[in-house]
Amino acid sequence: MSSELIVLYDIPGREKQWMSWSPNTLKPRMTLNYKGLQYRTEWVEYPDIEGVCKKIGARPTDKKADGSDRYTLPVLYDPRTQRVVSDSWDIARYLDDAYPDTPRVVPAGSAALQKAWHMLVLPTVLVPLLHIQLPHVCNILPPRSAEYFRRTREDAFGKKLEEVHSESDWEKLEQGLGKVKTCLEENGEGKDMLVMGDQITHADFVLVGIFIWARKSMGEDSDAWKRLSALHDGKWLKYVGQFAKYEYVDV
Amino acid sequence: MSSELIVLYDIPGREKQWMSWSPNTLKPRMTLNYKGLQYRTEWVEYPDIEGVCKKIGARPTDKKADGSDRYTLPVLYDPRTQRVVSDSWDIARYLDDAYPDTPRVVPAGSAALQKAWHMLVLPTVLVPLLHIQLPHVCNILPPRSAEYFRRTREDAFGKKLEEVHSESDWEKLEQGLGKVKTCLEENGEGKDMLVMGDQITHADFVLVGIFIWARKSMGEDSDAWKRLSALHDGKWLKYVGQFAKYEYVDV
Repeated sequence: MSSELIVLYDIPGREKQWMSWSPNTLKPRMTLNYKGLQYRTEWVEYPDIEGVCKKIGARPTDKKADGSDRYTLPVLYDPRTQRVVSDSWDIARYLDDAYPDTPRVVPAGSAALQKAWHMLVLPTVLVPLLHIQLPHVCNILPPRSAEYFRRTREDAFGKKLEEVHSESDWEKLEQGLGKVKTCLEENGEGKDMLVMGDQITHADFVLVGIFIWARKSMGEDSDAWKRLSALHDGKWLKYVGQFAKYEYVDV
Repeated sequence: MSSELIVLYDIPGREKQWMSWSPNTLKPRMTLNYKGLQYRTEWVEYPDIEGVCKKIGARPTDKKADGSDRYTLPVLYDPRTQRVVSDSWDIARYLDDAYPDTPRVVPAGSAALQKAWHMLVLPTVLVPLLHIQLPHVCNILPPRSAEYFRRTREDAFGKKLEEVHSESDWEKLEQGLGKVKTCLEENGEGKDMLVMGDQITHADFVLVGIFIWARKSMGEDSDAWKRLSALHDGKWLKYVGQFAKYEYVDV
């Protein structure tokens, strides 16, 4: 029965090809697909996230500027254990523990290093790309979410979404991806296309989620996507290509 | 015969208790001790590093502000293979490859993540501590090295060594170590005292080298060391304590 499936709470896009566009919700989605676990998606528009989280008992993941709780997606609900799990990292750990017969995305001994990977990639890759992405993301959201996204982000940045990014974000992004490339190359020849060399792990979903986010919101024909996918001799296009079979969205 | 031992090129301190004080040369020293490999140290004062490196064919590791090659220690020479290896990371990789019967410090599959660990710890922990450390380090160097260290660092920072650090460096340091602590705790209870949980790896030597550097140059009775070792309920003092047997210096 569909009511007994794991539920992934995700933010919808405006049309079918834009569903599951968020780099954060893409991580648990790809993890579920990779592990071969059955699930269904509950689509929650931006203005409804806080209410839904409170209703299902999902913990807040952060604080707002005014000190109040901030609720974010992804959230996962597992009817088998009746657990509600917020945050993509905690979901990865939960699924590894709760489904030990599926491939682990945080292999034994790698948890601290995987967390450090996230801490490195977030400011060096995701943040400069976010600046570039803001208007693109807004374009693919349904109207209520788009209005909410624009209003809250323009408040936070103190300027129009279209005015946040500058050429220096592209430079920072290239530098950040350069660091990631240097790390991957340390694995040695033939093992530089996955963070842990020959097995897919959470660290890969951190990275590939960022590229799928960009591809879906920029569109493959845009100058921005062409510029991004040309960096480092097209390495990242090949990198993302490896995960095509885990991109599946149930819409 | 001592002439057939591996040679570690290291920077001397002014007295015996201050030998091997650098966080960078401590990494290969602890790696050699941990692997149980026999070696001897060649002590090279700061002004002589470039000349010695050029003489033995050690590659430069960086560029100076004027674009010319920068030579740094550690360097390792292995008479068995006649290889000269610069840079603590490259030495770790070399020793793992050349002595496969010793415990690996970069376990299979962890190279990219270990490199990322280094990239995270360097700016968040080492750099703020360096600012605090500058006068302390200068104090424990022999006269020629101390003069060289003071002159080159004061040129680079544009101020006296004693004027580089501010209270904000302590705040940044505590934040940086807080990130490291968060990562370690992801390993779970009882596994949060080594980066990879239950085995010592290069990532630990990156971290412990930083604390030994501070302890040796600040002195255990200094206010600075007491402040550092009191952070996070004394976690770091316990962390460093685990590596006491690998601190051995052949002086």
